[in-house]
Amino acid sequence: MSVSVIAIDAMGGDFGPRCIVPASIACLAEFPSLHLVLVGQAPVLEELIARESGVDRRRLSVEHAAEVVAMDERPSQALRSKPDSSMRVALDLVRAGRAHACVSAGNTGALMALSRYVLKTLPGIDRPAMVTAIPTARGHCHLLDLGANVDCSAEHLYQFAVMGSVAAEALGLRSPRVALLNVGTEDIKGNQQVKLAASLLQQANGLNYIGYIEGDALYRGEADVVVCDGFVGNILLKSSEGLVAMIAARIESLFTENLGSRLVGALALPLLSRLKGDLAPSRHNGASFLGLQGIVVKSHGSAGADGFQSAIRRAVIEVRENLPQRLHGRLEDLLL
Amino acid sequence: MSVSVIAIDAMGGDFGPRCIVPASIACLAEFPSLHLVLVGQAPVLEELIARESGVDRRRLSVEHAAEVVAMDERPSQALRSKPDSSMRVALDLVRAGRAHACVSAGNTGALMALSRYVLKTLPGIDRPAMVTAIPTARGHCHLLDLGANVDCSAEHLYQFAVMGSVAAEALGLRSPRVALLNVGTEDIKGNQQVKLAASLLQQANGLNYIGYIEGDALYRGEADVVVCDGFVGNILLKSSEGLVAMIAARIESLFTENLGSRLVGALALPLLSRLKGDLAPSRHNGASFLGLQGIVVKSHGSAGADGFQSAIRRAVIEVRENLPQRLHGRLEDLLL
Repeated sequence: MSVSVIAIDAMGGDFGPRCIVPASIACLAEFPSLHLVLVGQAPVLEELIARESGVDRRRLSVEHAAEVVAMDERPSQALRSKPDSSMRVALDLVRAGRAHACVSAGNTGALMALSRYVLKTLPGIDRPAMVTAIPTARGHCHLLDLGANVDCSAEHLYQFAVMGSVAAEALGLRSPRVALLNVGTEDIKGNQQVKLAASLLQQANGLNYIGYIEGDALYRGEADVVVCDGFVGNILLKSSEGLVAMIAARIESLFTENLGSRLVGALALPLLSRLKGDLAPSRHNGASFLGLQGIVVKSHGSAGADGFQSAIRRAVIEVRENLPQRLHGRLEDLLL
Repeated sequence: MSVSVIAIDAMGGDFGPRCIVPASIACLAEFPSLHLVLVGQAPVLEELIARESGVDRRRLSVEHAAEVVAMDERPSQALRSKPDSSMRVALDLVRAGRAHACVSAGNTGALMALSRYVLKTLPGIDRPAMVTAIPTARGHCHLLDLGANVDCSAEHLYQFAVMGSVAAEALGLRSPRVALLNVGTEDIKGNQQVKLAASLLQQANGLNYIGYIEGDALYRGEADVVVCDGFVGNILLKSSEGLVAMIAARIESLFTENLGSRLVGALALPLLSRLKGDLAPSRHNGASFLGLQGIVVKSHGSAGADGFQSAIRRAVIEVRENLPQRLHGRLEDLLL
């Protein structure tokens, strides 16, 4: 098996290196051919590494970066005034060919801006998109864009559909069913961008475009790739996370309300924790930036160690499948 | 208690009069001062009424309408070519002052188009909006628009905020917290319409505007009224319905997987059915059209009798609170 080298922005996310360093080390144990470069303030990182036992330092190096992009910093500021941030240095490693991918839990807007600036987009792609897999009744659905682009033209939506389809194929799906998210399934439904994107997709060869899909059908698993603008995708993803959290809290409170319920609760607890695991955002936590000349995976800012490991796993698969190269090959056939 | 007369479009919805007639009769028992006018094909309706026992016909009349608006009919067609549809005749009863409100489970687009044409909007309101209450961790949140307006300007979003706030007050909330749905809470986040609507809302007196809200915070109950365009609201509502259905199915299958689980399932079943009831779309099923010179409540097309009763209940409250009059009074102060 060939070696994968992944650059980790070790300073990002709500929990920072205390969470990211142990999560990274756990991934080394999981993938024997994985090498990681932890990027950030070297003294902090070395101290956290020293706390872990049995670390294979031949597969774990540290690259010093003095600055940190704050979670609420403006992307333009991160781009202009922090040339030595951990995020920037990690992306530079990818551009220089010293790493195959970058994983960060940092500021999403800054990561997108820096990724575009450092790695550039693939030919024919105007804007990269963020994609993740969300659970459905039949498995998973790849949803994009998740918030990188709040205003999208029909051409952008078309490009997202192409990229989402190719990415889903790379992750193992054959002829993924691609749908446009809309407020109805009839032709007359939707806004101008969505209607125009539909007519572009109907003409595309080599895409399994199945038409419009509504929010409920998405969770019934009626498509493998669902395309929307970043405003809608972000609202859908975050409201779903909030709804799952609310339901989990209600189930727990039902089960602790009275003695009979507590008994049921004790018996049901293992089942419920399995369910929560299936639906937890962290399980499906790695979101990929598609359309760049390089692999960048964004971990949720509030992800714990589990979530960050999922993001690294996603990067490992994309490196193995050489996703940007595959995208590049297919885009030439499919783009207008 | 004063009498409320509600015109029921008895032919709409996926299940039609077989579902709507018994649901309407059940509501008569619940509200002693309620009168209902069932609008639709009289022979069909009379036959269904005759099957029910103990019906107080002094409070239940039938108004014949020969035509039915199909669920997939274009709104423009329903408007132009069906002057004698049950939906149209029910709305005409409201305009003529023979009913205080109209409830329909029919074609949403057609109901909106006919409502605007027959009842007209309130002064200062460009477009009516659809609002419903969705469950949150702390109670409920009034979400609008739900799909009546897929493209919205900042001024439309502002009007929705005003109408949503007044409606929430009418339903019993004091100084409801009003928020704009967005992809982040920082000032720089969002599309142009949302940013401009925020600046309009910041200047509004007499509104408890609390700023941007994200999808997860909505379900945490951090606002009482959440405003978005109809595209986003529709996707949020339908995806939430789909997610709840998926979770309920997973819980059920967890509990039937093996003998131990079946035992837990048998014990847990009453708890789970309570939970599903709390989260069922039908419980929060009535969606109001706000901004019209009259009361129109839309029941979900796929709602059963329970859902339709919820919609009638909502109409009863709006009649009691004289919602259009309250809106009219407040809009004069709040509109730009």
